Amino acid sequence: MTLHKDVMLDFARDARTGLDEAVMCASKSVPHLSAILEQVQEKGRRILLTRLLPEQLDGLSDSHRFAIDYEPLSRTGYFGGTHELKAKTQVAVVAAGTSDVAVAREAARTLRFYGEPAVEINDVGVAGLWRLLERLEEIRSARVVIAVAGMDAALPTVIGGLVSSTVIGVPTSVGYGVATGGETALRAMLASCSSGLVVTNIDNGFGAACAALRILRAR
Amino acid sequence: MTLHKDVMLDFARDARTGLDEAVMCASKSVPHLSAILEQVQEKGRRILLTRLLPEQLDGLSDSHRFAIDYEPLSRTGYFGGTHELKAKTQVAVVAAGTSDVAVAREAARTLRFYGEPAVEINDVGVAGLWRLLERLEEIRSARVVIAVAGMDAALPTVIGGLVSSTVIGVPTSVGYGVATGGETALRAMLASCSSGLVVTNIDNGFGAACAALRILRAR
Amino acid sequence: MTLHKDVMLDFARDARTGLDEAVMCASKSVPHLSAILEQVQEKGRRILLTRLLPEQLDGLSDSHRFAIDYEPLSRTGYFGGTHELKAKTQVAVVAAGTSDVAVAREAARTLRFYGEPAVEINDVGVAGLWRLLERLEEIRSARVVIAVAGMDAALPTVIGGLVSSTVIGVPTSVGYGVATGGETALRAMLASCSSGLVVTNIDNGFGAACAALRILRAR
Amino acid sequence: MTLHKDVMLDFARDARTGLDEAVMCASKSVPHLSAILEQVQEKGRRILLTRLLPEQLDGLSDSHRFAIDYEPLSRTGYFGGTHELKAKTQVAVVAAGTSDVAVAREAARTLRFYGEPAVEINDVGVAGLWRLLERLEEIRSARVVIAVAGMDAALPTVIGGLVSSTVIGVPTSVGYGVATGGETALRAMLASCSSGLVVTNIDNGFGAACAALRILRAR
Amino acid sequence: MTLHKDVMLDFARDARTGLDEAVMCASKSVPHLSAILEQVQEKGRRILLTRLLPEQLDGLSDSHRFAIDYEPLSRTGYFGGTHELKAKTQVAVVAAGTSDVAVAREAARTLRFYGEPAVEINDVGVAGLWRLLERLEEIRSARVVIAVAGMDAALPTVIGGLVSSTVIGVPTSVGYGVATGGETALRAMLASCSSGLVVTNIDNGFGAACAALRILRAR
Amino acid sequence: MTLHKDVMLDFARDARTGLDEAVMCASKSVPHLSAILEQVQEKGRRILLTRLLPEQLDGLSDSHRFAIDYEPLSRTGYFGGTHELKAKTQVAVVAAGTSDVAVAREAARTLRFYGEPAVEINDVGVAGLWRLLERLEEIRSARVVIAVAGMDAALPTVIGGLVSSTVIGVPTSVGYGVATGGETALRAMLASCSSGLVVTNIDNGFGAACAALRILRAR
Amino acid sequence: MTLHKDVMLDFARDARTGLDEAVMCASKSVPHLSAILEQVQEKGRRILLTRLLPEQLDGLSDSHRFAIDYEPLSRTGYFGGTHELKAKTQVAVVAAGTSDVAVAREAARTLRFYGEPAVEINDVGVAGLWRLLERLEEIRSARVVIAVAGMDAALPTVIGGLVSSTVIGVPTSVGYGVATGGETALRAMLASCSSGLVVTNIDNGFGAACAALRILRAR
Amino acid sequence: MTLHKDVMLDFARDARTGLDEAVMCASKSVPHLSAILEQVQEKGRRILLTRLLPEQLDGLSDSHRFAIDYEPLSRTGYFGGTHELKAKTQVAVVAAGTSDVAVAREAARTLRFYGEPAVEINDVGVAGLWRLLERLEEIRSARVVIAVAGMDAALPTVIGGLVSSTVIGVPTSVGYGVATGGETALRAMLASCSSGLVVTNIDNGFGAACAALRILRAR
Repeated sequence: MTLHKDVMLDFARDARTGLDEAVMCASKSVPHLSAILEQVQEKGRRILLTRLLPEQLDGLSDSHRFAIDYEPLSRTGYFGGTHELKAKTQVAVVAAGTSDVAVAREAARTLRFYGEPAVEINDVGVAGLWRLLERLEEIRSARVVIAVAGMDAALPTVIGGLVSSTVIGVPTSVGYGVATGGETALRAMLASCSSGLVVTNIDNGFGAACAALRILRAR
Repeated sequence: MTLHKDVMLDFARDARTGLDEAVMCASKSVPHLSAILEQVQEKGRRILLTRLLPEQLDGLSDSHRFAIDYEPLSRTGYFGGTHELKAKTQVAVVAAGTSDVAVAREAARTLRFYGEPAVEINDVGVAGLWRLLERLEEIRSARVVIAVAGMDAALPTVIGGLVSSTVIGVPTSVGYGVATGGETALRAMLASCSSGLVVTNIDNGFGAACAALRILRAR
Repeated sequence: MTLHKDVMLDFARDARTGLDEAVMCASKSVPHLSAILEQVQEKGRRILLTRLLPEQLDGLSDSHRFAIDYEPLSRTGYFGGTHELKAKTQVAVVAAGTSDVAVAREAARTLRFYGEPAVEINDVGVAGLWRLLERLEEIRSARVVIAVAGMDAALPTVIGGLVSSTVIGVPTSVGYGVATGGETALRAMLASCSSGLVVTNIDNGFGAACAALRILRAR
Repeated sequence: MTLHKDVMLDFARDARTGLDEAVMCASKSVPHLSAILEQVQEKGRRILLTRLLPEQLDGLSDSHRFAIDYEPLSRTGYFGGTHELKAKTQVAVVAAGTSDVAVAREAARTLRFYGEPAVEINDVGVAGLWRLLERLEEIRSARVVIAVAGMDAALPTVIGGLVSSTVIGVPTSVGYGVATGGETALRAMLASCSSGLVVTNIDNGFGAACAALRILRAR
Repeated sequence: MTLHKDVMLDFARDARTGLDEAVMCASKSVPHLSAILEQVQEKGRRILLTRLLPEQLDGLSDSHRFAIDYEPLSRTGYFGGTHELKAKTQVAVVAAGTSDVAVAREAARTLRFYGEPAVEINDVGVAGLWRLLERLEEIRSARVVIAVAGMDAALPTVIGGLVSSTVIGVPTSVGYGVATGGETALRAMLASCSSGLVVTNIDNGFGAACAALRILRAR
Repeated sequence: MTLHKDVMLDFARDARTGLDEAVMCASKSVPHLSAILEQVQEKGRRILLTRLLPEQLDGLSDSHRFAIDYEPLSRTGYFGGTHELKAKTQVAVVAAGTSDVAVAREAARTLRFYGEPAVEINDVGVAGLWRLLERLEEIRSARVVIAVAGMDAALPTVIGGLVSSTVIGVPTSVGYGVATGGETALRAMLASCSSGLVVTNIDNGFGAACAALRILRAR
Repeated sequence: MTLHKDVMLDFARDARTGLDEAVMCASKSVPHLSAILEQVQEKGRRILLTRLLPEQLDGLSDSHRFAIDYEPLSRTGYFGGTHELKAKTQVAVVAAGTSDVAVAREAARTLRFYGEPAVEINDVGVAGLWRLLERLEEIRSARVVIAVAGMDAALPTVIGGLVSSTVIGVPTSVGYGVATGGETALRAMLASCSSGLVVTNIDNGFGAACAALRILRAR
Repeated sequence: MTLHKDVMLDFARDARTGLDEAVMCASKSVPHLSAILEQVQEKGRRILLTRLLPEQLDGLSDSHRFAIDYEPLSRTGYFGGTHELKAKTQVAVVAAGTSDVAVAREAARTLRFYGEPAVEINDVGVAGLWRLLERLEEIRSARVVIAVAGMDAALPTVIGGLVSSTVIGVPTSVGYGVATGGETALRAMLASCSSGLVVTNIDNGFGAACAALRILRAR
């Protein structure tokens, strides 16, 4: 079965999606995280840490902790540096409310890690339509728009009707009552009457950024 | 216990909400409907028939059938005439898509039965924002706005942020997949980030009209 | 694009719904809240703080904390004073059980902030029907009734059949088992057989008050 | 293992709950139903047929069809006669709306089959409270009250607060939107704030009658 | 309107269900509970406290705390004594697993408060059928059986097929995965193929006891 | 990349699960089914047809239709014969109610197609416990028990506690109200307190038979 | 307010998403559809008709019917021709099972209407992994992959791990039991552990194609 | 009724499923656990402790605590030793992600307790297909495969198509958004297009091991 193994390696090389330098920390123990960082360091690689809780960060050794470029709102960390920043900004990350900014920031930080600059536009929920319209030109100039919204999640629908570029909706778990957990926002985005809107899991700013990277990296 | 009975009658008089001249036909048999119409006719009253299916209408006697002013899209009928039409239009009934018009029409027909004229504005879903903005002045001039929408149901949220009058959201069961049955539209409206939006049951154009009547009739 | 900007400002002026002097505090950090209060203070404005947790209040600077008129049951605070109180009481806020009073109080406090006095009637759940009937005259005299109830949420239905004025149902998250989270109360209100009942999100006393304000302020 | 078999027979005798002379027809084929009736006839027994659709009835042989005492609203049939009717009426079957009567009738017909007379009280939904209060004395005089209601299902809660006897709530699948299928009615009854209310499956008039029979037959 | 008031008092007297000497403590503050106890003491009444958490108990004044006969598993307390114990045991409270005993005990304690003795039978889940069958005679001798079970909740169905007396199913929130929160247990009981089984809300041992009391107290 | 292709063929040979001679007909058009049968015939193979509706069967050519060994209750057909029947019966297919027999029969027919004889035991739901206990020895003698049940689905739990062999639960969509669609039966089985019970999708008699075949065929 | 109107027209021009030449026919009446076609014809435009049922097609006038290039599996029609076909194939539309092909075809037909050629790859569900791997090179060569799957919907996850291009998952409503309606497929795709997968509403082949068009048309 | 009792004992002997030496600790109090251990010790038996939280372990007496062979990841403990280990490894426990290992380990530890060795294969989720294919031979050599996966839970489907042995899917509660609680993973496994896959409750590694034991122990 040595044949098999070779094929596997071959797969591994081919299959590289280019998005595998990230680890989601939320459900991992501190020793587990330390081991991962150790391994990354040894191999001279870099890694994006998502959902890294402050208490996890505090539990790490000083040398690891200080080596992490941590952003508390998005709970993301860079370890071993980031990819070189590209010159051209092709992504707009738009957040409906102030409570959606954490998820939007996770998207922006993920893009930054992989070298894609992104413009962040916050507090443009459709209940205050004029604030959105004021920023429309900026949004239109992006090749990919990541629209982050909780509650009724009408933002991506409205943007989808105003721009011809790709719109990725990211529902957030912000809110109470029927909005709890983000299920309503998710379903409203999926049911959107704007043609060609695509959607990620709730609070998945990282995933939206990866989707944008897949789009931008295409040959 | 004669005392009790008197109190009851007293209640009945007081409690009259003024919205009791309507009957929902959907789950009633044709003989049952005939009996109701007979009774209304005998007492010289009038009645609003909602969710009256064409096959139910066809099953009625000729004299009943011809006496009903039937509107097929909304499936509403007037029997015994309507209340006198008021001069001033105070309600706007706004529908997001062409599929939402049947529910919007039920609201408008209910209002008309009770004497309230309403302006109907259709096909102004937020995926085509400019169509909504073109009609904004008309919408703003109403004292009560009934906003009917299915799918993502973003219309009432956007309107709620643009007008200071009462906005009643009516979710519709239009759509497929996650939109099926109107649950997503309902929850998106309830989760709305527009302050003071109120909501009715799915497809309940009649209920929204009754709410508008309660508001307009207040001393 | 200067044209655009002007239009936007124009929108902003027109669009003012008159309900924008409120901020929901629950998911905001203390520094974020401090910054908001600072800004309000600088502009000489006032603001209604909803869902302000005691621990958030404690985290504020003394000068901010003492400047807030805080009511712990409803978790609401007034900062910078309130609108002038109107003479005539036009709203009744009715709560089914003692556990519903927190939400009812949020409605009453919101109304008070915007200058509308409201009568509060508590502990009149329909399992003890006579207690409700004793207060019926008071409820009937209101132009808008906000009916707050959890569990089976039958209160707004019963009131809706006894009064001709506007009834806004507010479901609460009170209860256990099938009542957990308020979904049952919400759905029971939406399914109500009282014509013209309208409903808000679960625990949304603030929203119900805003809806009442939209009704009362209409020309 | 012959011992086992004897024990089984013993069980069968003891375990007889006295409610086993009924068959639910809905999902059975006409030949299957014919075979059951044949068997009942041969043994000289009687049987209660529930959810017997008109098209099933029409498919039976003339001799079977004419031998069935069929009631179309409840879709129940008696085959081989009924138990002797008791003198004293101890059950009240109360229905909120006209659409709930079919389920209420199933309960009443089941009780009648087993010899228990029941008073039927219809159209006393709580949105028209005075109609309920007019019939209160009759309801109070029953040892068991079966309260049948769809939509918001507030009827059993209100009755539960007004009587000290047993109240069995039967939710119905009447209604549209959030009321569709009866889930809302079911949950509202289970969440009821009236102490000691018990509930059956949706549309289960037969089950409520059986519960009443268990109560009334107790030594 | 003095007439009204008299009628109300009259209602209050008549309507007494005999189950109103209980208060659910879970969501109440300690000062609120103290005030209730004070009032009960002043009037020389007694009260059943349900869902009284240890931390709530600890927060009460010494005189109140020592006057409460507290049972920690069921979290119930008697204040001001109990009703006189009847001689005859007519209720069996049966629990499927050891984790269901807390809810079963709440039922037994409620019955005891109102003077009804009950036999408690634990750990007779149907996965170990023989343990249930060993206790069958005891269960059969009861006029009312309260069957408490979580997870698959098959216990009431099996008992319902073996006894002719009243069976009240109480689903519990015991379990993980699909059993979380008790919804599965509740629905399995409602869908039971045992005729005449009635059901309460999840974890509602108190409600089941009240239902038993309604049955046993009937004239 | 010819290497790849070879590996694929290799996979295909190895991966054969031995369960691939079946086709689910429900959502396929008659021409599509005809084409499949044609292909099977040409290759001299046999195939198991599941969920083959009578109207689909009627639409086939005479030569195809007559070549199918069709069983209407289970809606299964054999085309091109079956595998040779083994001598030893190692599977018991047990159905709770008469409405569950169609699904049980699909399991038995699938087993028969693949050469495994199965004993079918029907109408042994746990509401009539003694009927189940009478058949216990037969059930115990099987190496795999497929337990088919709808509604409360307690049957597999009770069997799982009485036998040491493998028990595969198959929930059915039988029932109304909360039982509609089989979701309650499914969840009750998954939540079962009998250790080591495994479960398939709702109404999936075919899948349960395939699981039994995987178990029985193991080396 | 003439200013407003101009701005609106301006919006319309700018906002053109380039995807507005499509109409969903499912819930529209034949006269309504006729009117739309008439209008399109008059303006010398073309239109894509989606979810056009055969019975709707049959109801149209001969001249309309014959002018529609109809594909029955996808229920799509071209009226007034299509956009010019591009030379380069940049999209792969991949379907897991034969029942998913209708939705996949809707995507391919939408792409074709707008001039984008697409390769269709069917019957490559992950339960037969080798069939997928055989087609891997073709899939990898596409810039956008539309992966259509029902039931467990594992296809997009597996593809997402094997290619670096954009993967759009389209869940289908294929299946029974827990798969009914496509909700499980939708949620499985959203929960995917493949980074950067994006998802559309259930059965929304049209939407996925529009998303691909947004991506491909970007400057 | 002494006869009864004898039968019961007889049942108990026969019914022994051989899986009853386990206790789930999660919802039990420390005194309760101590009492169980005491009893086991007195009888000279052994017991498997599942879901034993560290804080529960810490609460036990030293003699009990030190006598428990505790594994923290799976939260399992052996008390009184284990069954003798068999020579032949017949089970593979396969986990998709690192977060699924805790549940997989519970399965492996349960198997070990009952004397069955198992190979553990981790981190072979289908988003990195080649890692799974590298371990395929090992997986194929097992008679029973326990496949543990959360999120999209595609692992058991892919394995089910590659091996002919028994595959038991165990969904885990790993993940966020739509993956929260494991419901999506559960449903995706039940909807699997791999024939003959069987499934347990969410996170039920113990149950999967018991199912494997039932299979392996069959005569």
